[in-house]
Amino acid sequence: MPDTRTIDFFFDIGSSYSYLAATQMARISQETGLPVRFRPFLLGGVFKATGNDMPAKLPAKARYMLEDMTRWAGDYGIPFQLNSRFPLSTLRTQRALCAAERLDATKLPAFALALFHTFWAEDGDPTNDAEIAKAATQAGLDPAPLIASIDAPETKDLLRANTDEAVARGAFGAPAIYVGDMMFWGNDRLDLLVRSVRRTA
Amino acid sequence: MPDTRTIDFFFDIGSSYSYLAATQMARISQETGLPVRFRPFLLGGVFKATGNDMPAKLPAKARYMLEDMTRWAGDYGIPFQLNSRFPLSTLRTQRALCAAERLDATKLPAFALALFHTFWAEDGDPTNDAEIAKAATQAGLDPAPLIASIDAPETKDLLRANTDEAVARGAFGAPAIYVGDMMFWGNDRLDLLVRSVRRTA
Repeated sequence: MPDTRTIDFFFDIGSSYSYLAATQMARISQETGLPVRFRPFLLGGVFKATGNDMPAKLPAKARYMLEDMTRWAGDYGIPFQLNSRFPLSTLRTQRALCAAERLDATKLPAFALALFHTFWAEDGDPTNDAEIAKAATQAGLDPAPLIASIDAPETKDLLRANTDEAVARGAFGAPAIYVGDMMFWGNDRLDLLVRSVRRTA
Repeated sequence: MPDTRTIDFFFDIGSSYSYLAATQMARISQETGLPVRFRPFLLGGVFKATGNDMPAKLPAKARYMLEDMTRWAGDYGIPFQLNSRFPLSTLRTQRALCAAERLDATKLPAFALALFHTFWAEDGDPTNDAEIAKAATQAGLDPAPLIASIDAPETKDLLRANTDEAVARGAFGAPAIYVGDMMFWGNDRLDLLVRSVRRTA
């Protein structure tokens, strides 16, 4: 039975709507009274497991998504620019996040937000060890042991386990957010999540 | 230059998220201070023109969409059940809406809401002339001339023109909602639309 008193936030640094949602998680936690657990997963693995594909492959949809992202960023008051590397394979980044989860899970949200900023605001490369180290330092994590454990079997296992858990709970895209058995897909479900938690509380 | 003082609401009766959004349009008009113009289009034509496809073809997505629809309906306080005919070719229904637009556009929103209710609340068939006549009567439209003009060339032309206009303005799905050059896709963008209109007013 999934925990109904925690919000599980599955995300990938390469997902623009994960970025938007990640910046709102402190507010969502406050508005629901529930803790948010940041859960790094591999969006590419979710696509593979479910037969889904990049939404931005359709030209009309890609154009709209850029307009939509820009509008949400303005609405939230956060910086946004489409990264010149997009779409990017984020395997190393997502493993670095799992390494951080293993070393000190309390620093994971700040580390994730720093890496989101690298990719979605600074046109940086979040798979690069220098950028990973910089984000770790910003989040109060010691970069050396973190980078050393990116390729550890336990780190790889954690990323696989997180991805498998999200797929088992119904994920087919990112962000995938759960409160117990309730699934919410996307940044655009955050206010509905808050209202649903309040109604079922 | 598109009219920035009107909300253009392009919808198809066969689209569940069009149904959700349609029930909120009176509120959105009130919250923005802008009139909403109901614009029947053919979602199948939009898919064809843009290379898009039914979102519910992915099993994991179909499961989530049913959960999501049920949740939104509860949130809005409106009835919802998945129609046993879904997905349905709505060509005749969308032409009937265009016939209504030609006969008396002021009755179009009520007529559309009645047809949405037939399909998404009563498991009825909105392509059936008896159901079309019933919905017309509910909306204060005389059913006989309406049904007689469903197959008129001018009615068919209007449906094609509405669909072409939406595609030209960027649509690839439904509902597609426009305020001037701003495009909003989906029921889940209504609150963002309100905030965006207020910000740019």
